Order: sequence, then C-alpha cells, then structure tokens
Amino acid sequence: LRQGFPEVIFGQGKNLAQMRTIIAALLAKGGNVLATRVSAAKGAKLKETFPQAVYHPDARALTIEQHPVELRGKGKILVVCAGTSDIPVAAEALLTARLMGNEVEHIYDVGVAGLHRLLARRSALAEASVIIVVAGMEGALPSVVGGLVDKPVIAVPTSIGYGASFGGVAALLGMLNSCAAGVTVVNIDNGFGAAYAASLMNRVHR
Amino acid sequence: LRQGFPEVIFGQGKNLAQMRTIIAALLAKGGNVLATRVSAAKGAKLKETFPQAVYHPDARALTIEQHPVELRGKGKILVVCAGTSDIPVAAEALLTARLMGNEVEHIYDVGVAGLHRLLARRSALAEASVIIVVAGMEGALPSVVGGLVDKPVIAVPTSIGYGASFGGVAALLGMLNSCAAGVTVVNIDNGFGAAYAASLMNRVHR
Amino acid sequence: LRQGFPEVIFGQGKNLAQMRTIIAALLAKGGNVLATRVSAAKGAKLKETFPQAVYHPDARALTIEQHPVELRGKGKILVVCAGTSDIPVAAEALLTARLMGNEVEHIYDVGVAGLHRLLARRSALAEASVIIVVAGMEGALPSVVGGLVDKPVIAVPTSIGYGASFGGVAALLGMLNSCAAGVTVVNIDNGFGAAYAASLMNRVHR
Amino acid sequence: LRQGFPEVIFGQGKNLAQMRTIIAALLAKGGNVLATRVSAAKGAKLKETFPQAVYHPDARALTIEQHPVELRGKGKILVVCAGTSDIPVAAEALLTARLMGNEVEHIYDVGVAGLHRLLARRSALAEASVIIVVAGMEGALPSVVGGLVDKPVIAVPTSIGYGASFGGVAALLGMLNSCAAGVTVVNIDNGFGAAYAASLMNRVHR
Amino acid sequence: LRQGFPEVIFGQGKNLAQMRTIIAALLAKGGNVLATRVSAAKGAKLKETFPQAVYHPDARALTIEQHPVELRGKGKILVVCAGTSDIPVAAEALLTARLMGNEVEHIYDVGVAGLHRLLARRSALAEASVIIVVAGMEGALPSVVGGLVDKPVIAVPTSIGYGASFGGVAALLGMLNSCAAGVTVVNIDNGFGAAYAASLMNRVHR
Amino acid sequence: LRQGFPEVIFGQGKNLAQMRTIIAALLAKGGNVLATRVSAAKGAKLKETFPQAVYHPDARALTIEQHPVELRGKGKILVVCAGTSDIPVAAEALLTARLMGNEVEHIYDVGVAGLHRLLARRSALAEASVIIVVAGMEGALPSVVGGLVDKPVIAVPTSIGYGASFGGVAALLGMLNSCAAGVTVVNIDNGFGAAYAASLMNRVHR
Amino acid sequence: LRQGFPEVIFGQGKNLAQMRTIIAALLAKGGNVLATRVSAAKGAKLKETFPQAVYHPDARALTIEQHPVELRGKGKILVVCAGTSDIPVAAEALLTARLMGNEVEHIYDVGVAGLHRLLARRSALAEASVIIVVAGMEGALPSVVGGLVDKPVIAVPTSIGYGASFGGVAALLGMLNSCAAGVTVVNIDNGFGAAYAASLMNRVHR
Amino acid sequence: LRQGFPEVIFGQGKNLAQMRTIIAALLAKGGNVLATRVSAAKGAKLKETFPQAVYHPDARALTIEQHPVELRGKGKILVVCAGTSDIPVAAEALLTARLMGNEVEHIYDVGVAGLHRLLARRSALAEASVIIVVAGMEGALPSVVGGLVDKPVIAVPTSIGYGASFGGVAALLGMLNSCAAGVTVVNIDNGFGAAYAASLMNRVHR
Ligand SMILES: Nc1ncnc2c1ncn2[C@@H]1O[C@H](COP(=O)(O)O)[C@@H](O)[C@H]1O
Ligand SMILES: Nc1ncnc2c1ncn2[C@@H]1O[C@H](COP(=O)(O)O)[C@@H](O)[C@H]1O
Ligand SMILES: Nc1ncnc2c1ncn2[C@@H]1O[C@H](COP(=O)(O)O)[C@@H](O)[C@H]1O
Ligand SMILES: Nc1ncnc2c1ncn2[C@@H]1O[C@H](COP(=O)(O)O)[C@@H](O)[C@H]1O
Ligand SMILES: [Mg+2]
Ligand SMILES: [Mg+2]
Ligand SMILES: [Mg+2]
Ligand SMILES: [Mg+2]
Ligand SMILES: [Mg+2]
Ligand SMILES: [Mg+2]
Ligand SMILES: [Mg+2]
Ligand SMILES: [Mg+2]
Repeated sequence: LRQGFPEVIFGQGKNLAQMRTIIAALLAKGGNVLATRVSAAKGAKLKETFPQAVYHPDARALTIEQHPVELRGKGKILVVCAGTSDIPVAAEALLTARLMGNEVEHIYDVGVAGLHRLLARRSALAEASVIIVVAGMEGALPSVVGGLVDKPVIAVPTSIGYGASFGGVAALLGMLNSCAAGVTVVNIDNGFGAAYAASLMNRVHR
Repeated sequence: LRQGFPEVIFGQGKNLAQMRTIIAALLAKGGNVLATRVSAAKGAKLKETFPQAVYHPDARALTIEQHPVELRGKGKILVVCAGTSDIPVAAEALLTARLMGNEVEHIYDVGVAGLHRLLARRSALAEASVIIVVAGMEGALPSVVGGLVDKPVIAVPTSIGYGASFGGVAALLGMLNSCAAGVTVVNIDNGFGAAYAASLMNRVHR
Repeated sequence: LRQGFPEVIFGQGKNLAQMRTIIAALLAKGGNVLATRVSAAKGAKLKETFPQAVYHPDARALTIEQHPVELRGKGKILVVCAGTSDIPVAAEALLTARLMGNEVEHIYDVGVAGLHRLLARRSALAEASVIIVVAGMEGALPSVVGGLVDKPVIAVPTSIGYGASFGGVAALLGMLNSCAAGVTVVNIDNGFGAAYAASLMNRVHR
Repeated sequence: LRQGFPEVIFGQGKNLAQMRTIIAALLAKGGNVLATRVSAAKGAKLKETFPQAVYHPDARALTIEQHPVELRGKGKILVVCAGTSDIPVAAEALLTARLMGNEVEHIYDVGVAGLHRLLARRSALAEASVIIVVAGMEGALPSVVGGLVDKPVIAVPTSIGYGASFGGVAALLGMLNSCAAGVTVVNIDNGFGAAYAASLMNRVHR
Repeated sequence: LRQGFPEVIFGQGKNLAQMRTIIAALLAKGGNVLATRVSAAKGAKLKETFPQAVYHPDARALTIEQHPVELRGKGKILVVCAGTSDIPVAAEALLTARLMGNEVEHIYDVGVAGLHRLLARRSALAEASVIIVVAGMEGALPSVVGGLVDKPVIAVPTSIGYGASFGGVAALLGMLNSCAAGVTVVNIDNGFGAAYAASLMNRVHR
Repeated sequence: LRQGFPEVIFGQGKNLAQMRTIIAALLAKGGNVLATRVSAAKGAKLKETFPQAVYHPDARALTIEQHPVELRGKGKILVVCAGTSDIPVAAEALLTARLMGNEVEHIYDVGVAGLHRLLARRSALAEASVIIVVAGMEGALPSVVGGLVDKPVIAVPTSIGYGASFGGVAALLGMLNSCAAGVTVVNIDNGFGAAYAASLMNRVHR
Repeated sequence: LRQGFPEVIFGQGKNLAQMRTIIAALLAKGGNVLATRVSAAKGAKLKETFPQAVYHPDARALTIEQHPVELRGKGKILVVCAGTSDIPVAAEALLTARLMGNEVEHIYDVGVAGLHRLLARRSALAEASVIIVVAGMEGALPSVVGGLVDKPVIAVPTSIGYGASFGGVAALLGMLNSCAAGVTVVNIDNGFGAAYAASLMNRVHR
Repeated sequence: LRQGFPEVIFGQGKNLAQMRTIIAALLAKGGNVLATRVSAAKGAKLKETFPQAVYHPDARALTIEQHPVELRGKGKILVVCAGTSDIPVAAEALLTARLMGNEVEHIYDVGVAGLHRLLARRSALAEASVIIVVAGMEGALPSVVGGLVDKPVIAVPTSIGYGASFGGVAALLGMLNSCAAGVTVVNIDNGFGAAYAASLMNRVHR
C-alpha cells in the first residue's frame, strides 16, 4: 500500500523522547521520514540525534530522506495562498506533496482583494493537475481559483484571523459553501491532509 | 430629521389589519410610504384598500408615493449581487435606496466563480459613490468588489444556501472577515438597512 | 471549458416558470440538462412541458439527454452509503457522475456498525478510481473506507439524523476530523458537488 | 454505599496545600485513595508528603492503596483506544476501574482507519463484560466496536485533535449519533466517569 | 447475536409503503417487531395491513408480538421522568425495554423542583438494576437520581422546552456535566437507545 | 442614587497604576471601596499603597472601609454553593452583599448529588429574604433550591468544569431553563452582579 | 406555599383534551387558573367548556378567576417594552403579575433608538418596585432602564428578529452582558417566569 | 488608488525581523507608515531601528510620518466609546482615521447605563460627518448613538467582557441586530477597518 509515500509523524503533542523513538523505528524500516508540526526548538534537538535530518522552518516540519524521492505522480501539484500568515500551512502542503513523489509549484502572493496578481498567474493555474488553495479570514480564494480552472481544487482553511474568524471556522464555512464546483475541503490548518489527498488524485490513471 | 425619507413599515409578522392601520396613519402625515417584507398575497389585499399602492414582487415590498421622490443623495448607489436567489434582498435594497432620494443602479449577474462578468462591469463600479453587495453562500463577493474600488462597500449576507451555510451565518462571517478594507456589514437579509446606511453615506457632504 | 459536462440547474427555491425558462434556454444550447433538487410534483409538471425529460425519484432530479453521454472519465466512480435515508444524496451523486461522462457503480447497504458487509465489498472498492462516501449521523463511514483504499475519498455528510446530529453538523465534523488520510469533504447533502469534484479527479491524466 | 470503592479527589484546580489536606483526611478514613488530574510535578511533591503514594504518569493520577483492592466486579472491563494521544484518558479509565475492584484489560493500538488491528482482537472484545472506548478526532471507534459486540459500550470523547475537532466536540457528537445501539457517552476526557459507570454495570447481578 | 431481541424499525422519514415492506420481511423471519417514531395516522394504516399489530400512542410506536416476550434480563429496568411533556420519550424507552425481555417499571411524576415526590419513591429506585432518567429543560433529574442510588443511570435528554433549551441541547449538556458519577448519556429523544443499552447492562452476568 | 453602596472597581484587565489612581479618586469621595477580580499579587501591592485595605483571598477582592457599613437591606441574603471550586464566585457575592449593607449568610457544602446535606439546611433557606445560588458543571442547584423556597433565587453559573461544560455555558443554559419558577440568572462568574441585584431586592419595601 | 398565587398551566404542546382535564382539576381546588401559551383557536374551544374563562389575545393566555385576585404584593410591577412585536411576551408578564396579586403598569412604546420617549416616562420608572423589561433584537433596553433606576430589573429576551438575532440569542446575550448592575435575566420569551420572580421580589418584606 | 492613505502593516503574528523588512520597504516608497497591533516591547525595538518612529501605547500602534498628513476627508470623524477597556480599539480607530487624512475627535466616557453623559455631548455628535462607536459587553451604544443622529454609524464590537460575552460575540450580535437604522458593523476589535471605511465615507462627494 501507498508505495513511495514517506512515513509520517504528527509531531504536535509528542515530546522529544517519543519523537526520537518513533523516528528511529521508522528509519529502521528504510523509507523516508516526514515529521509535521515540529517546533524550531524541537527540530534543532532532533537534528542532534539525527544529523541527516533537515528542518524546514517555513513548514514547521522535519524530513529525513534516506533515498531520493521517486516521482510517482503524473502531473504537477500547485499550492496557492494569499500571503505571509498562511505560509506555514501552505509550506506544509508543498513539502508533503514533494515528499510523496509529486512535481510541485507554489504561488504565495495572490489574494481576492488584489485580483490582478492572481489573474497574472493564470498559466500556472492552467498547467497544474491538482491545486491546493490555502486561505484564512473569509476563505474566498478557493472559489475564485475554482472559477478559473477545471481541475480538482482542495481548499485548506487556516486558523489565521481574529474576532469573528473563530480560529478558522469562518474560512472553513466559506469553503464548504463555495459557489465554484469542484472544490473539496479538509480540516483547518491541515496542509498535510490536503497534500496527501492531492497525491492520491495525482496518481489516478497514472 | 431624516428629511425626504419615506415612512417605513417592517411588514413581517404584522397582519393585514395592523398593516392597514399603520399605512393609513403614515399616509395622513403626507409623506411617501414603504412597507418591506410584504408577501404577494398581503400586497394584493393592501392594494384593494390603497389603490394608489404599487407592489414590487421582486423586492417583496409595497410603496405609496404621495409625491415624487426628491433627489437628496449626491452620487449614485450601486447594488450588486450574483444571481437569482439573492435578488429579493438586492431588490429591497435598490427600492429603498431609490425611495430615499438616491440615483440607483444595479448589477445582478456577477459572481466570484465567474470573474470575467464582474471585471466587465468595472466602469459601473467606478462611477458609484456607495456600493451595496448582496451575497449568500460563502459571501465572497464584497471582498472582490472591495478590492476593485475605493468606495464604501456595504455587505449584505443572505440566508440563501443549505447545509453549512447555516441560514446566512457562513456569508456573514465571510463578510466580517473580509480581507478588503472599507467593507462594513449589516444583518442577514437586511437589504433595507444597507440602503438606509448607504443613503446616509450618500448625503455626507452633499 | 468543461467539455462533455451537462448544463446543471439547482432546482431548490426556483418556481415552475423559472425552471421552464432556464431549461428551455439550456436545451437551445444543444447539450444535456440536469436539474437537481426537483420535487416529484415539480418533476411531473416539467415532464408535461418537456416530454423527453426523465424524472429520477430516488435522486430527486430531472434529466434531458439530447445526445448520448460521452464517456470522458478514465476510471470508475463508486458511490457508497449505509442505507435508506442517505440514498437521495447518494443517488444525486451517482446520477451527476454518470451524466458527467463517468462509468459509475454504487454500494448502498454498508455501515460502520456492520463491518462484514463493507469488508465483503473490498474488490469493488479496489476497482474504483474515486470513491464518494455518503453518510449521516456520526459520519464515520469515510474514515473506514479511507482506511481500506488508496484512492481519493470524497465524503458527503447528510442532514439525516435527529437531536445532536444538528442537521448534518455531527457528520460534517466527523468527516473533517477523519483519521484516514486522503479524505476531502463537501457541504452537507451536496451529492452534486461531490460528483462534480470526482469527475474532475477522474479526468486528471485521462 | 459504594462498598469497596476508593475515595476520589479531582485534582485539577486544587493547589498542593488543598490536596495534602484532603488526602490526609481521606487516609484517616482508612480506605484507598485515588487522585485524578494530578500533574507530574504535583505528584512528585505529594509523594514527599505521602511516601506510600504511587504516581501513574500515563494516567496523570496518584494512588495510595492502604489495603489490597478487593475484587467486586464479576466480569472484565476492557478499555480500548486508537493510539498515543488518547492514552492519558484511557489510562485514567483503566486505573480507576482497577481501583474500583474490577479485573481490567486494555487495547491501545486499534483505530477505524486500520480495521485489521481491531478485527485481530475480536476475542478480547468478546470476553469483556463492559467495554470503554476512548477516541478523539471523529470519534468513530465506539460505533465500530459497538457493531462487533453485544455488551454495554461506554464512549469517552477526548479533546485530542485540532481545527474542527473543537476540543472534543466533534468526537462527542459522533458518539452521541452512533449508529450502533448499546453505546452511551460521558463528558469529554472523562475517563474517570466512564470507569465509574462501568464499575456499576459490572456489579449489576454480581 | 442479540438473542431474544425484537427486530426494530426506525419509522421516522419512512413512508407507508416502505414500512409495509420492511415489516413484512421482518415478520417472515419469525421474531417480534418494534417500530418506533410512528405517527398515529401511520399506525392506523399499518394496523389495516397487519391486524395483529398494537399501536402505542404514548410511545408513538407499533409492536407485533408473534410470540410471547421471553424474560432475558435478570433485574428490573426503571424509567423515570418528570411529567407530561417527556412521556413520549419515556414510554418509548419503557416499551423497548419490555420487548427486549426485561421486567420494567416507571415513575412519571417526579421532578427536581418538587423533591418530596422523588424522595417518596426511594424504594423503587433502590430495587431497580438499571435506571433510565428522561428529562428536558435543564436536565437536572439524572444528577439527583444518580446521587440517590449506586446503579447505572442512563440519562436521556429530551427536546422539550423553548428559547435557550435549544431543542434539547441545554438538557444534554447538563447531563454530560452531571456531578453524580455513574451517569452516562444518549442522544436527545433517544428513548430507544437508552433502553437498548439498559437491556445489555441488565444481561451482564445474567 | 444608590445610597450606602460602596464604590466598585472591576479589577480585571487594569494594571497597578490604573488601580491606584482609581482607588485614590474613590477614597477621596469619602465612601467605602470594593475592588473585585484582584489577584493576590496585585492585592499585596495595593496594600502597600493603601495600608488600610483588606485583601480577601477567597473572593479575590480588596476592600477599604472608610466607615462602618450601614445596614440598609431589611432581610438576610443567603449565598449557597456546592463546593470548593465555586467558592471564589460565591465569596465575591457574599462580600459584595455585605458591603452593600446586607446581613449575609452562606452555605458552601451542598450539591444536587448529595441532597441530604441540602435538606438538612432547610431552615436557613427559609429564613433568607433573597438566595444567591452559585453552581458550575450542570448548574442544577438553583432548580432544587428554587423548589424548596418561595423567595427570589438568583442563579450564578460558574466557569468551573471541563469538556462539555464549555466554560460555564452548560450551567448557564441549565439555569435559564430552570423548571423552578422564581429563578433569574446573571452572567457566568458574576458574583458581584448577583449580589448587587440581591441588594436591590432586599431594599424593596424596606 | 405560594399563598394567593393562581394555578398555572403551560399550554404549549398540550392538546384540548389534556387542557380540559387539567383545568377542571385545578378549578376543583378552588383557586384561580392561568393558562399561558394558548392559541386563539384553542382559547375559543376552552371557552365553550368553561364559559367563565376569559381569553386574552394580546397575552395568548386564558384565565378563570373564581374569586377576586387578592393584592399581596406591596408595590407596583412595571412592564416595559419597545413596540408591537414584543407585546405578546410583555402582556403575558403583565397578566401573570396581576393574577399573582400585584398592582401593575405598562409602557409599551419606548426603545433605545428613540430615547426621548423613554426619558419622558422617568416618573413611572421611579414609582415602580420591580421593573420587567422585554426586548428582542439587540436587547439593549434593560441596560438603559437599569441605568435610570435603582430597582431590580428583570430582563426578558424575545425571539423577535431575523438573521443574526438567532431566535432571541442575540437579545439574551446582550442582557446577560448588561453594563447596568441590578439586571437579572430569564429564558427567551419567558414573560411568565419574569412575572413570577417579580412577584416574589414584590413580597419580600411585605 | 487610495491617494494620501498611509501604507499599513498588521503587526500581529509578525516577528521583529519581518516587521523591519516590511517597514523598510514601505518607507522606501516614500509614504507614511502605520503598523497596528504592535506590542510595547516590539514597538521599543522598532524605534531602535527607525528612530523617526512614534509608538502610540494607547492604540498599540507605531507610525512613521515621512511627510505631514494631508487633509483629504471633508468633515470630521468622531470616535465614541464607553470607558477604559475599549480604549485600545477606539484609539486604533482614531489614529488610523487621522493618518488617513481626516479631522478627528473622540469621546471616551459615555455608556448606555449612564445616558446623561452621552446626552451632554449631543452637539459633538451633531457636528461629525461619520461616527465610529466602539463597545464591548452588550454592544448597545451604537443603537443609542444611531438613534440620536442621521449620520453613518460604524459599530466596532470589542472582545472586552467575560462569561457570556464570548470574546465579543455578544457585542457583535447586538450591533448586527441594532434597532437604529444606519448602523453598519465591522469585525470584533477591528478599529482599523472601521476607520478605513469611515475615511472612504468621508471622501464621498469631497
Ligand atoms: N499535520 C498533520 N495534520 C493531520 N494529520 C497528520 C499531520 N501529520 C501527520 N498526520 C497523520 O498522522 C499520522 C501519524 O500520526 P501519529 O502516529 O500520531 O504520529 C500520519 O500517518 C498522518 O496520517
Ligand atoms: N426589511 C427591514 N429590515 C430591517 N428593518 C426594517 C426593515 N424594514 C423596515 N425596517 C425598520 O423597521 C422600522 C419600522 O418597524 P415597525 O414599526 O415594526 O414597522 C423602520 O423604521 C425601519 O427602521
Ligand atoms: N477525572 C475526573 N473527572 C470527573 N470527575 C472526577 C474525576 N476525578 C474525580 N472526580 C469526581 O470528583 C469527586 C471529587 O471532587 P472533589 O471533591 O472536587 O475532589 C469524586 O468523588 C468524583 O466523583
Ligand atoms: N466582578 C464584577 N463583575 C461584573 N461587573 C463588575 C464586577 N465588579 C465590578 N463591576 C462593575 O464594574 C463597574 C466598575 O467598572 P470599572 O469602571 O471598569 O472599574 C462597577 O460599577 C460595577 O458595576
Ligand atoms: Mg472549476
Ligand atoms: Mg476597496
Ligand atoms: Mg486511504
Ligand atoms: Mg453492539
Ligand atoms: Mg450514583
Ligand atoms: Mg420557588
Ligand atoms: Mg440600576
Ligand atoms: Mg440614526
């Protein structure tokens, strides 16, 4: 099952000792390892134990590639978000998608309140096989992207915002009610899950 | 106070007898009368009593203009919505704005999942002094419009949708979290309130 | 864009006159027509106007196929649900997927409280390219199915249930928190949206 | 009343001084003592005062057994959970059940997205008199277990998860809407309460 | 599995034709039949088809006993509620428990705002093996009953109330937060589920 | 207005400098001063500035009595709660009521799951003019007390609890849905507000 | 207990037969009878059975006064609301208060958006012993009234409004967060409960 | 676009390095800079890098005025709030409005529970072109202000409060349900957004 996929650890709520034990066990299996939700501090400590590890600060993730990632997806997975605050979630999706054997690309500077920047990237949208759109606040970006393409769009709400954003609920509801067909949704801040689903889609009829 | 504004009745939850008494009393004051949230059936009955009344089925409203509406607002109020289901709320806003002495215009066929139609109307957006944007489902239209103009945008969420739209809550939250500055929000389905506020804005520095 | 897709009408909240006008306009374009959320009564009336129409009571939908549906998706889309109450949503998904040019199959009698029936259908799960799982109440079926396959799973919560099901919210939350990776979610009762997204996935790398 | 049950202290929100006073008073009564929701730090301090105390880090609990626990329940209470994160709640249930005079057993590594591991333990399920199922995220495990057995199943939602798990609400709703009959539910993270209820069930017709 | 239990149909949302087909199929299996959530009108129609059926207006349920119910539970199941409005749910629980082979008893006139009536029935509480407590509004009765006995108490919130009762949510939350240990909870209005769980408890160590 | 009432400061969110300025200003007016929501640390610092101040750790409040409290209420105000965790709120109510010129009494060890302790205090309940009942978790105590007396009962929900207590919401809803007439409710943790209202009631017809 | 209070029936959800039985039983006890939440149709039918009954359409209530109401409260209870839509709840409160032996008065035409009307009635506010304030929508009236008087204010939120009023929740929250001390709150639409509590307050120190 | 408006940075969630980079880039464009949601500590550090910066502790904001603010709005923007706790949000609005080229004024000591103070400032209300009303707790102030003037009122709910204020939700709902026409609403604590919208309104027909 899941050939070519890395072993994945959900780092949140696990202490260093637990992380070390799990990583060592997974390495022993011989595959690549991806640990998500790893703080910079924890990442630094883990690098002491596993010198071959790479910590990705933008994605708050740690990877150990015991062998080169084999390309298994057929097309390209594109990750889109509007700006600084959503980057951690977008970068988690991008890193996951790459480690799962996909060609990846990202656009991090487009938002619904500045359409020209998005419209300027239409060719990138057109070339992708699957698009992951990460957005906080009102979560409108997936609808706009979904209206521009005929590809599966996976929407990831983020917990970015304040007040009536309710920790990502406003964005989540916006995405579930998207007026653009072809949009499906994952949990708030779940960049990993979006990339996993996108990887499966990118292998359909490979 | 409120010179040139019509007398307004909130028709919902009032029976015919109550409506008749209130309308008669307001007519006696000499001004124009606007009754919102009036069903077609109730409207027909009221026209029997007040033959000079006009029923507006799209806006679910009834008006009696005892004298011509005097133009009091300085610029134009534009009402924008995405399609069929939101029209009742948009039309209530449009009718209210006109009766309150404003030049009005509307665009009823633009949505975030079909940007080209909206972009084709940029000159209309540019000419308006105040823009009312009516939207249900994910409520993303005000953000997109707000990104295109430097005018006050009043966002009206509608109760249109199903499932996780929660009777307009998804649209309301989307609008409150708009990433476009300059957007303010009124209650779900409150086309009247949006037009009233827009009228006040259109009289500032008249 | 969207070659081979039918024109689709969301029937809910539209009256007969509106339906007739829209259907006539769409027929004039020459393509197939799908109207969802159409009651039996409305369906019967529409068949009087459009004798070539077929009403699908299980899916609460009406179709007019002006020409044979051309197969455009490469693999099979499988629709899974647990029983009687979820069938309307599942059937809407199945019908939509077929009209969008996909080979389709369905399993309507498997639930998480009777695992043997689901496990007996593992080969059907294995043969599908994309799986749509429809579930109300606690919405656990997509997690179980997602754990058995390495295909994209689209989860559709339904409003079936009572009390603390809150009109589908319990199922929706269950699906968003699925412990099986590869599951993405659409709005409550949105069988159409699930099938549309599945069709796009089934065309990736066609 | 409640013969053979230990005295129980809910440690959360109580400071060291308060804990010491209460424990001393309860010891004076002569019975065994169980303190739940006790942090490791607080536990260490309490062991200084009460050297006979045992701190259970997995269950975040402290016990003082002044006399051997007398077996009062007739059958076995089985505690089931899916993995690492839910163990604190499961261990609180297990410890409580043991101290209340029950034979206990646990299975900590089964989840709905990996059914084979659960199915491999069917004989353990069959041998239990009462089963406590602890689960976070979508909370689907009690339904699956409930479908496999004809014993009372007590479901304990945990606050484990993020985003739309809403601190255990998603799991709670999933359990309340369980499609498997025979499942009853306690408060989020209430391992103690589940074990207490299970103990009462295990004494019925003893 | 589940020897001596009747076949059960959840009547809500099923039409007459569906009900007839299912009942006929179940009768053919030879066991007793219980249909819950059956309106008086539907019940009358079903009696025309199945003359041996009995309709229970208080429980909104229909039963067909093809052979006498065999007593399988060892002790007595007691159903308690506070008054008129909660009786439909209490009666559903009582009827279900009886058909599942239990000796049953009920107390329908005790509430937390009139403690003397409850206290007058302490011997009935003491004699029961399992107690089902049905309550709407603030849902406090299970806590009071749970404080008086050392038996498993199954709490059933009802949707009775108005305003901030939110269709049973207030009662549900009250019960989940019960300060009396030994209380477990089922879904709002789920008298059937409570009785099913109680029957399993009443067979433990039979 | 409000003769004989102390000046009151809501200490939460105010820093030491702000507190000092306000207290000094109020002292200058010559009346007594009550500051609620004052941490022990802040209280100690304020005592350095105002040596005549008294800090009440149980109530988390600070008082400065420049002259003896004059008795203005006619009867007695009784404050009831179930145990340790609710005492801070109960003590805030008790202190406020005393400073507002009322004879006060308290019962801090009665709960709905141990009715005998409450029933043993019926004469105290009978002697009070107004009763404040403080309760967290399921918030059932006001209903039980309200059923025993014919006095105004003011219910104060507390934020004590975990999981589905939702920071006091479960208790609040329980109290709003109380089946005992004569119960009114204040905000979660608002011991001050309850005592203020009770003081007004205790002066009616003085 | 409760001398001089009428017997009260909560009419909602009771059918005619049930109402007749209960009313007859209460009449037999010799006291006055009050039935709240009685529709006009049901009221008319009950008058056929009980010709001495009076139906109060504004309060949706029915009364049978077997003997004159004895004045038991010492001061006056004043009921305040803003306008037409809240009158049913206000009138229920007024009628209940009168039947419970209080002198009553009402002001039905004051709102926070037209302060002059409220300020014009300050003497009426000053003369009351207890004030019941009924308000829907944003529920701000109790705060304003509470700021003008030093009497107990009982706030009754109503379910009047639409959109984000959420059936009275917005008003309820507004009242619970009132910045005017001395305000206590009852359930949404609970005019009866407010009057019952006000009656108890009006008897304190009688 | 937006001539004369400063460049604005949302400081929350950005670290010092990010802030420095962005500010330097904006300064290079030559305009004025406004950074909101900047803590005192971060503000002090930024002043080291940008000595010309001014930190505004009341507004938690930092400004760098490279050239004098040019007056672009025609009338005055008035910011109103009730007291100490809401000042940070009010001050953010005031500072933003000034930097956007408006004449500004503020009233910080008026509340609905002390109407006389508000009524004493009616001339200031009358002179403003646009009024921003900032309020926490029950959020009633905008309704009262809106009832006194015929100007656009922008309501800003704040997260101030506790218990059932739910972090500003109670105030937000109160404002959305305002019974005074002409009130529009922005997100909780969004002083910046209110001032931005007010600035656009103050330029209409300039
Ligand atoms: N960021 C993430 N969000 C959600 N799920 C994740 C994430 N990272 C890993 N996972 C899932 O968590 C599983 C590992 O969980 P654990 O055994 O708790 O480390 C993986 O197999 C993934 O399915
Ligand atoms: N559609 C509407 N939505 C909200 N408020 C309205 C609406 N129509 C009228 N109103 C307001 O309702 C007031 C009249 O209320 P009423 O006295 O109940 O008829 C008017 O002055 C308006 O402020
Ligand atoms: N982890 C727990 N969760 C819920 N209730 C508990 C827990 N531990 C103990 N309790 C209950 O808390 C009571 C003691 O509460 P206290 O007097 O506050 O220590 C015990 O009798 C138990 O009923
Ligand atoms: N614990 C409390 N909870 C709610 N309101 C309080 C509390 N303590 C004081 N108050 C109110 O807060 C007012 C003072 O607020 P402030 O001016 O912010 O100190 C007093 O007049 C009281 O009405
Ligand atoms: Mg698309
Ligand atoms: Mg703009
Ligand atoms: Mg899978
Ligand atoms: Mg079972
Ligand atoms: Mg008990
Ligand atoms: Mg009472
Ligand atoms: Mg007052
Ligand atoms: Mg106004």
